[in-house]
Amino acid sequence: MRPTDFSAMRCPVARAMAVLGERWTLLILGEAFAGTTRFDAFRRNLGIAPNILAARLAHLTAHGLLLRVPEGGRHAYRLTPRGRDAFPLYLAIRDWGLSHFFPEGAAPTVLLDRATGEPVLAPRPRRADGTPIGPEDVVIRPGPGAGEAIRRRFGPGAAHG
Amino acid sequence: MRPTDFSAMRCPVARAMAVLGERWTLLILGEAFAGTTRFDAFRRNLGIAPNILAARLAHLTAHGLLLRVPEGGRHAYRLTPRGRDAFPLYLAIRDWGLSHFFPEGAAPTVLLDRATGEPVLAPRPRRADGTPIGPEDVVIRPGPGAGEAIRRRFGPGAAHG
Repeated sequence: MRPTDFSAMRCPVARAMAVLGERWTLLILGEAFAGTTRFDAFRRNLGIAPNILAARLAHLTAHGLLLRVPEGGRHAYRLTPRGRDAFPLYLAIRDWGLSHFFPEGAAPTVLLDRATGEPVLAPRPRRADGTPIGPEDVVIRPGPGAGEAIRRRFGPGAAHG
Repeated sequence: MRPTDFSAMRCPVARAMAVLGERWTLLILGEAFAGTTRFDAFRRNLGIAPNILAARLAHLTAHGLLLRVPEGGRHAYRLTPRGRDAFPLYLAIRDWGLSHFFPEGAAPTVLLDRATGEPVLAPRPRRADGTPIGPEDVVIRPGPGAGEAIRRRFGPGAAHG
């Protein structure tokens, strides 16, 4: 059986995970968010094998999250708008990892807002009135790009699930 | 060289990705958020091979995101608080995938708030005054659980990056 092509699935999470779904990828993005641009700095800061790093950087470049630009006789990897736009999801993954896989009060790093000194945390989904929204509050409906299968599953009168 | 053990890394994103960093995992969580609990329903809705689904469900159960409970002579997979708490990151990944890998106006599905009918979107990180926070606004500092390497890199006087 051939591996599923996630980038061809009609699902935003599948297409996102076709790009992000390899564990080093988000750590490399995290380095880019922290200002790292050079191959050697990524390698040193992450303790990642050079061949794996080269493959992951090529993957992020091919998918438009990083741009490889000449700089001082070598190359720098710069975040594109698409890469920069992954910051909210990075933050949400970080907060969840911190809450669930570290003891209370044992954060290895904290992120602070340069302007205010306040901690930077992923905001939780809320209504306009401030009440939190959880998965049980959500109804899934076919969108304008829905195919037949999605319309059958989530359209009017569908048996949900 | 042995593969890196992400769950042992002193990094919340690494530990999160030790659990989430396989592409099917988030799709399975998405099904759980949509109310799916049965093996056969996961299999059918995702079009996933049974052996892969069984392995992923066992992984999510072992890491405490799902609970396997007897129900009607078979089993149901129920979200735990840890699994439920992944909803904000799921939403953030979904929104990013939709913005960057689908044409404008071609969303296959929309998520609506059951209470208000409003679209449910991942909120962007903002300051108390409402201004957006991007990666360049963030300073990384050692947290209470920082080790020597993190203190050297992010502590006072460290050369950033």
